[in-house]
Amino acid sequence: MLESQDLKRLDELFSSMEEANGCFLGYPFAKRFDYEPLWRFMSLTGNNLGDPFEPGTYRVNSHAFECEVIDFFAGLFRAPSCEVWGYITNGGTEGNIYGLYLARELYPNAVAYFSQDTHYSVSKGVRLLGLEHSVVRSQSNGEISYDDLAQTATRARNRPAVVVANIGTTMKEGKDDTRKIRAVLHDVGISAIYVHSDAALCGPYAPLLDPKPAFDFADGADSITLSGHKFLGAPMPCGVVLSHKLHVQRVMRTIDYIGSSDTTLSGSRNAYTPIILWYAIRSLGIKGIKRIFHQCEDLAAYTTNELNARGVSAWRNPNALTVVFPPVEESIKAKWQIATQNVSHLVVTPGTTKHQIDAFIEATTSRGR
Amino acid sequence: MLESQDLKRLDELFSSMEEANGCFLGYPFAKRFDYEPLWRFMSLTGNNLGDPFEPGTYRVNSHAFECEVIDFFAGLFRAPSCEVWGYITNGGTEGNIYGLYLARELYPNAVAYFSQDTHYSVSKGVRLLGLEHSVVRSQSNGEISYDDLAQTATRARNRPAVVVANIGTTMKEGKDDTRKIRAVLHDVGISAIYVHSDAALCGPYAPLLDPKPAFDFADGADSITLSGHKFLGAPMPCGVVLSHKLHVQRVMRTIDYIGSSDTTLSGSRNAYTPIILWYAIRSLGIKGIKRIFHQCEDLAAYTTNELNARGVSAWRNPNALTVVFPPVEESIKAKWQIATQNVSHLVVTPGTTKHQIDAFIEATTSRGR
Repeated sequence: MLESQDLKRLDELFSSMEEANGCFLGYPFAKRFDYEPLWRFMSLTGNNLGDPFEPGTYRVNSHAFECEVIDFFAGLFRAPSCEVWGYITNGGTEGNIYGLYLARELYPNAVAYFSQDTHYSVSKGVRLLGLEHSVVRSQSNGEISYDDLAQTATRARNRPAVVVANIGTTMKEGKDDTRKIRAVLHDVGISAIYVHSDAALCGPYAPLLDPKPAFDFADGADSITLSGHKFLGAPMPCGVVLSHKLHVQRVMRTIDYIGSSDTTLSGSRNAYTPIILWYAIRSLGIKGIKRIFHQCEDLAAYTTNELNARGVSAWRNPNALTVVFPPVEESIKAKWQIATQNVSHLVVTPGTTKHQIDAFIEATTSRGR
Repeated sequence: MLESQDLKRLDELFSSMEEANGCFLGYPFAKRFDYEPLWRFMSLTGNNLGDPFEPGTYRVNSHAFECEVIDFFAGLFRAPSCEVWGYITNGGTEGNIYGLYLARELYPNAVAYFSQDTHYSVSKGVRLLGLEHSVVRSQSNGEISYDDLAQTATRARNRPAVVVANIGTTMKEGKDDTRKIRAVLHDVGISAIYVHSDAALCGPYAPLLDPKPAFDFADGADSITLSGHKFLGAPMPCGVVLSHKLHVQRVMRTIDYIGSSDTTLSGSRNAYTPIILWYAIRSLGIKGIKRIFHQCEDLAAYTTNELNARGVSAWRNPNALTVVFPPVEESIKAKWQIATQNVSHLVVTPGTTKHQIDAFIEATTSRGR
């Protein structure tokens, strides 16, 4: 049992986290969800160790639900039937490192390319894996510069290319086009190509956009990752990574100890997050994802217009939930937890309210008066 | 909202996981814990992104509690004051990969050594990191063979050595001795040495044993990892990794986006598991850990004796919670989720009851009659 002073500290932690949860705008995490019917699973020693699609010795797992989540996204991402495999990760970083790992095992001599707007987990991944890499320039909207990719790749045209495509860059939600990326590399004379799509934020809604961005398996991706705690929402970081089975077989090992194959990066894995993601997609369905996306987009459009009307040069990419504006003051940055990197941004995720947006705009624009 | 058939499936999943939770003996996970006072945190978008010891832009975090957990284990593992850093991981695999990553950044030309009884995450880690490695023979109790380590390391005596020491091997809970490992390598003529202690299971109680196994910072470890979901118990995999600050500085990068340093492997990290581990150590304290360890050990001794009395050649290492016996039949393996790899074992973790043990012994030994 906890002593009373510790119980008090726990209450204080909850209050401070709850307060912060009520006013963050700068990170692309959904702010509201209701998974209370799932809390009872917290009483069990859940562990999805091993391959989700294989039976294993340990049975306190949610593999069956994990597989349904994988199948849902495989369909959404136009995976060729039965040729794609995946698992639920601890977040976007694990998905990116996993994709790069599969790429390196296929092409050990590859050069990795990714734009300067790419999430920091990718440069960590290439360092971890010892992959040689070149950073490519971005366009002003955050999208990779295909001209610079062509120039950069020309210098290593005799080596395989691994490209991380951003389906929603971290700061501007710019979207790289995997078809253009493959075409550019082909033109340069490279035929050994691996494309990993980092669809951390946009993964759940990108397939439903019009026009649909080119990022999925039919558009030439070898692996795709998305985050569960971003658009869908989760109380802890989680994500999905999908890849062609052929790539995964290269890293697979059979482990007697668990009576299953070791195909994932984490080994022992969270059994709770697959249930959360299953619950989210079963509750929402594709219709629900679409509906919520449009609600968010409307609010993002409103935010941009209101900021512009008050003289702040805010903008956003087409179909994006991310509103970009000049760096804000420290006090605003602190209260609203505004991510800043040359520019500032806010992301209208599910659960963001007009009330929050109005309060933020009021605080930001009243300063100069 | 979920449809009624989905609600039913959720109930069925819970029932089947609950049933399995009531009769697993083969994995070193605590079976009983009560974190219900913490479930309310599941309503928040928690994320411990960035370095736990630095302020960051995102405030829905439990960094302060995470730091307390790190400090608790730093003290228990005799870390030199203020010279050790750590964070809470997603489990033992992440801790092992992190330790090996720090080792490789210190000694890129190293050979990694670990015994054949080492957890499969270590061979995955060296492959991921591109570390050359040699597998060393084990003694029959699971402990590394120091003679074979000397012979193996002699062949690469001009290169740095990275050794993963097992503080509790997966199958037999054999404990490698970090002082002996360092002495053996010194005798061979190697002075550039990095020792990572994988104390996944034994971490919380190894410092309290008499005699105390040699595995901590004062015994020459450069980094140590332990699992949170094993002895302490947690509803999802988690762990702690600790290392000398000097090693960590080699992999650190400042990230404007999060307003913090990127020192961890995961980036976005679980904010809930630090609160769980904090709750566990604050509720138990060192006295409580000792008391629970002795309860488990008494039951492990009872299990061994009872199996022996029934003609099963069961045994266990001194001060170990793991009881080793010849491989059991498939039906027993399936029901009790008995990990098997040449031998079978069961692990008496917190929450294991005499009733479960008796039922297992009855099932195992009644077959031959």
